[in-house]
Amino acid sequence: MVIYHLIQRLKDMDICGEIILVPNCNPIGTNIKAGEYTLGRFDPVNGTNWNRGYFFDKGAVEHFAKTVTREESIEGIKQRFRAHLSNAIDNKLAEPWGLGLAQQLNLKLQQMAVNADFVLDLHNGPVSTRHVYIPEYAKDSAKLFNIPHCIFIPNVFAGALDEATFCPWWTLQESIKTNLAREISFNVEAFTLEMGSQEVIDFNEGNIDATSILSYLNAKGVLHECDIKPKAMQRLGVYLKDYKTLFTNWGGMVEYMAKPGQTVKKGEPLAQILNIDDLDTDNGSRTLEAPCDLIPILHFPSASVLSGTQLYKVFTNYREL
Amino acid sequence: MVIYHLIQRLKDMDICGEIILVPNCNPIGTNIKAGEYTLGRFDPVNGTNWNRGYFFDKGAVEHFAKTVTREESIEGIKQRFRAHLSNAIDNKLAEPWGLGLAQQLNLKLQQMAVNADFVLDLHNGPVSTRHVYIPEYAKDSAKLFNIPHCIFIPNVFAGALDEATFCPWWTLQESIKTNLAREISFNVEAFTLEMGSQEVIDFNEGNIDATSILSYLNAKGVLHECDIKPKAMQRLGVYLKDYKTLFTNWGGMVEYMAKPGQTVKKGEPLAQILNIDDLDTDNGSRTLEAPCDLIPILHFPSASVLSGTQLYKVFTNYREL
Amino acid sequence: MVIYHLIQRLKDMDICGEIILVPNCNPIGTNIKAGEYTLGRFDPVNGTNWNRGYFFDKGAVEHFAKTVTREESIEGIKQRFRAHLSNAIDNKLAEPWGLGLAQQLNLKLQQMAVNADFVLDLHNGPVSTRHVYIPEYAKDSAKLFNIPHCIFIPNVFAGALDEATFCPWWTLQESIKTNLAREISFNVEAFTLEMGSQEVIDFNEGNIDATSILSYLNAKGVLHECDIKPKAMQRLGVYLKDYKTLFTNWGGMVEYMAKPGQTVKKGEPLAQILNIDDLDTDNGSRTLEAPCDLIPILHFPSASVLSGTQLYKVFTNYREL
Amino acid sequence: MVIYHLIQRLKDMDICGEIILVPNCNPIGTNIKAGEYTLGRFDPVNGTNWNRGYFFDKGAVEHFAKTVTREESIEGIKQRFRAHLSNAIDNKLAEPWGLGLAQQLNLKLQQMAVNADFVLDLHNGPVSTRHVYIPEYAKDSAKLFNIPHCIFIPNVFAGALDEATFCPWWTLQESIKTNLAREISFNVEAFTLEMGSQEVIDFNEGNIDATSILSYLNAKGVLHECDIKPKAMQRLGVYLKDYKTLFTNWGGMVEYMAKPGQTVKKGEPLAQILNIDDLDTDNGSRTLEAPCDLIPILHFPSASVLSGTQLYKVFTNYREL
Repeated sequence: MVIYHLIQRLKDMDICGEIILVPNCNPIGTNIKAGEYTLGRFDPVNGTNWNRGYFFDKGAVEHFAKTVTREESIEGIKQRFRAHLSNAIDNKLAEPWGLGLAQQLNLKLQQMAVNADFVLDLHNGPVSTRHVYIPEYAKDSAKLFNIPHCIFIPNVFAGALDEATFCPWWTLQESIKTNLAREISFNVEAFTLEMGSQEVIDFNEGNIDATSILSYLNAKGVLHECDIKPKAMQRLGVYLKDYKTLFTNWGGMVEYMAKPGQTVKKGEPLAQILNIDDLDTDNGSRTLEAPCDLIPILHFPSASVLSGTQLYKVFTNYREL
Repeated sequence: MVIYHLIQRLKDMDICGEIILVPNCNPIGTNIKAGEYTLGRFDPVNGTNWNRGYFFDKGAVEHFAKTVTREESIEGIKQRFRAHLSNAIDNKLAEPWGLGLAQQLNLKLQQMAVNADFVLDLHNGPVSTRHVYIPEYAKDSAKLFNIPHCIFIPNVFAGALDEATFCPWWTLQESIKTNLAREISFNVEAFTLEMGSQEVIDFNEGNIDATSILSYLNAKGVLHECDIKPKAMQRLGVYLKDYKTLFTNWGGMVEYMAKPGQTVKKGEPLAQILNIDDLDTDNGSRTLEAPCDLIPILHFPSASVLSGTQLYKVFTNYREL
Repeated sequence: MVIYHLIQRLKDMDICGEIILVPNCNPIGTNIKAGEYTLGRFDPVNGTNWNRGYFFDKGAVEHFAKTVTREESIEGIKQRFRAHLSNAIDNKLAEPWGLGLAQQLNLKLQQMAVNADFVLDLHNGPVSTRHVYIPEYAKDSAKLFNIPHCIFIPNVFAGALDEATFCPWWTLQESIKTNLAREISFNVEAFTLEMGSQEVIDFNEGNIDATSILSYLNAKGVLHECDIKPKAMQRLGVYLKDYKTLFTNWGGMVEYMAKPGQTVKKGEPLAQILNIDDLDTDNGSRTLEAPCDLIPILHFPSASVLSGTQLYKVFTNYREL
Repeated sequence: MVIYHLIQRLKDMDICGEIILVPNCNPIGTNIKAGEYTLGRFDPVNGTNWNRGYFFDKGAVEHFAKTVTREESIEGIKQRFRAHLSNAIDNKLAEPWGLGLAQQLNLKLQQMAVNADFVLDLHNGPVSTRHVYIPEYAKDSAKLFNIPHCIFIPNVFAGALDEATFCPWWTLQESIKTNLAREISFNVEAFTLEMGSQEVIDFNEGNIDATSILSYLNAKGVLHECDIKPKAMQRLGVYLKDYKTLFTNWGGMVEYMAKPGQTVKKGEPLAQILNIDDLDTDNGSRTLEAPCDLIPILHFPSASVLSGTQLYKVFTNYREL
């Protein structure tokens, strides 16, 4: 949705450099339905998440770091490193025994992103507020989007595109610092932006999201003579370790009382649960309470819930940015 | 959800006769998920709708009608006919080559309903207003529920529980009229009540729905000393032939602009469609207009739509009751 | 598979008329997987069978029959009737409120078949012998294929392509006979050929199947100077009413002891069933026996079976052709 | 299947110690079907593999190792370590924010296995030969089963039950060796036995598999006065790194020419592939050749294959044991 608005609005803008917009990165996921809803997140053949097959070889980056000298220009290092990364992706894609489908798709996308300074991976998911994943070293960029909830992530690779983009540069910076005591900032940034439910389209909200992204791009100097600025608004941040998942240990029908974005105090109700097997007893309905002060960021999109379901993902120990 | 409230509220009431509440009639459908949503409507093994395996043998009813004399009391006919129906279901269930799973479950439920005067089949489905299916002969009962949208159905069997309940009685009445010129009303009624989305639970709405059902039961004399009366409200009705389905002949992402229950004039926008394959052309987005005056009753629950999708089901040629 | 061999072999043949080969008629069904297997038979969004959305309007055919005179040539009738059918399909496809996806695809295919004299619908399904559905009036054609098991079907429309092809011509013949006492044979034939499991590809068997089809086409005069003749072999036939489905009324793990095509006497074992919930009792395993003399034609493809599963489809009261 | 036979045969045997047989460890996976086949391997809600949610905390084991003295008896260490492991599982299960469904089920099973000396995890999967995963330190046990293909795995945890069982003991042995230069063998062994296709039940083969397992148990002294001995047979082994997966980089229909267990030389045909989109060109069919000498152990169970499918898993660099 936001891609559509970005395309419309960038048409009339003066762009410095190049912007590549890739809609529909999981072409297969988008088309698969089981029942009326879309099975967008994983490969129905084998359960593989469509967004966790990106590539990062930490050892190879550390090895590359050893080739950097105290004198080499930052631009020179960037250029050589991009060639190194691109080459590594090509080698991976040419793996003689082949690769799984998610990994094939991911690597082709990663190859497209290898020369970019700013990589924004736009996601849709369950019922949620807008939120963004930000590498800790780029914390200042949190204020350049109009996104109220920010998650700061460490230099740990778990297979996603943003990590596959920033982990190499972050690792290179750190290795060079260790090796040469030389402090470099490459100014490459990557984010995952969560844009709300995949099952709801709203053209107005899409346009608001486009403004949020344009405000980041403008702040980074990508747009000429553009006056879009980040909104003055409350932004809350957490470290990844404080972004917690609340699993159920029961099955039932659920009314989600706490809405995404809402401040909930410890002990306040999160959900009302209907136990279908006990409708005629006093256990027919009960309330689930917040285990601590928190803000729900997203909840499971269905009212019908099994034991072990990710009911809510929540901010704890959050603070204003 | 409404079952829960009915159980709570009927506990303290004085009931005339017997009320059987059967929650979770498709136990298998309810538990099956593919992705995060629930695949409640059909058997994932073979595509069989869980709610279209009920039983009606028109010829056998017409045959039975011939045994009715001009003198036989209505209560006598009802008793004999119920025994006939119950026997027919038992025979079907004992089919030596077996039955499909949906049919097995349906017939067991139908056997439970065979002695009832009033059968209410409570459904949940996609995003919709509350609506109710009513046999044409029981049109007056439309005003006994607090349901704004009513669909009047003819004496045609398509496999559902309400039809399986009223088609035999309706056919019997008509056959007796033809055979003996005797006009009888058996006062057996059956309805399908559509209670909104299966993916949203709301305890307050469940209680309001319970009041609606209690108001019908009270009007029918099932509850003693109960003062729940149908609400004064607008009720709109259509014949089944005017309850139309609008299919897509394109695939895309959809914003549902017309909301269930809303009056839409011919030519007004129903939906805004995003064509992912043409985002960068003028065909990136377009509007779908209402082909005639209508009221959307439900729309497809997902924003991602293929060609041939049931986008909306709508009232046309409706009138106030 | 057989399509591949037909293409290769027809390349070098002298064809009289035109042969249209349409591989992959359910493009969507073929690509959908849930787990490792293919969900080929129904639309996973709504459970609609991909092969039951064809079109037949019996009333319109009877109406058309009234326009036929005693003098009109057979070729003249055929030409007019084909135009009538083609027009009816076009009208249906242009339905202003749209059509479901299966129906859209089916009607486009039916339109391609409307001018054909011989329509062969090639299916794959579960674990089965080769078998063929033949309209009763074309019984003699059973001996033109090399297919051991033949099912003769009456003039009843259930939505399949073969029926959608022959029901109109059959109904027209019968109406003309009734109206004018004129006996006409239009020599239009349609069949559904079941070519074994969709989950097993065997190039050799595909070639054998191609020979079987070429032998039919040759007998019908489609191929010039071709010496492929039907094999001398045992062929068994049943009426559709004697082609029976054996459903389970239990769930469990199954060893299919009776193989497709094998003669089984009443009381002989069909299957050995493992009851997982009773492994440690004497009910851990039991044998299912044939309820009458029969030949299994196909069985459910999975060893894991629920209650209400179509375990076997079998020939009863079969006879040699 | 094999569980059934083990139960029957162990009934009459004299067992030393205790044998716990747990059939149907993935109760949810076993019951879920999408189409006619069983979706046994992962949770259809979120793609989580049902067999990769077991628990191993390497740091905690190394910490425990420091409490072991040079004098402590092996039995004493085992007893204390079992209490430690059981306690760690309990703590994990009591996680206040809850756990995913697969992990809940896995941990309960792991708790049942914590006191066992021999843990056999019996799997079914796609079309395969019998094969077994064996920790490298227990290589000698490869000859105690009647299983022709053995995979030796290192001390690396990837979430499976066998690893969750042996990684702690293996790590403990190694830590004690490092810390105290004391060589201990705890004689705890764990294996994953792959018993062929989940979609085929064969009572005779189940009994043969039971003999294979009883021969291991007897060799380990679990059975008194039992004369079941491992068969003299060829057994082939590989290291995990040489057990390779061959992915497709095309989609199509496949005939699996090389059968599981068969010796294939480099360049010999593995599969014949039908390209549905090119049936009428010379690219309609082509052969996939073995990239090196190998033995296929399993192949994908469906003939319909997408790009990125695990077509074969094969032994390379294998040797006779």
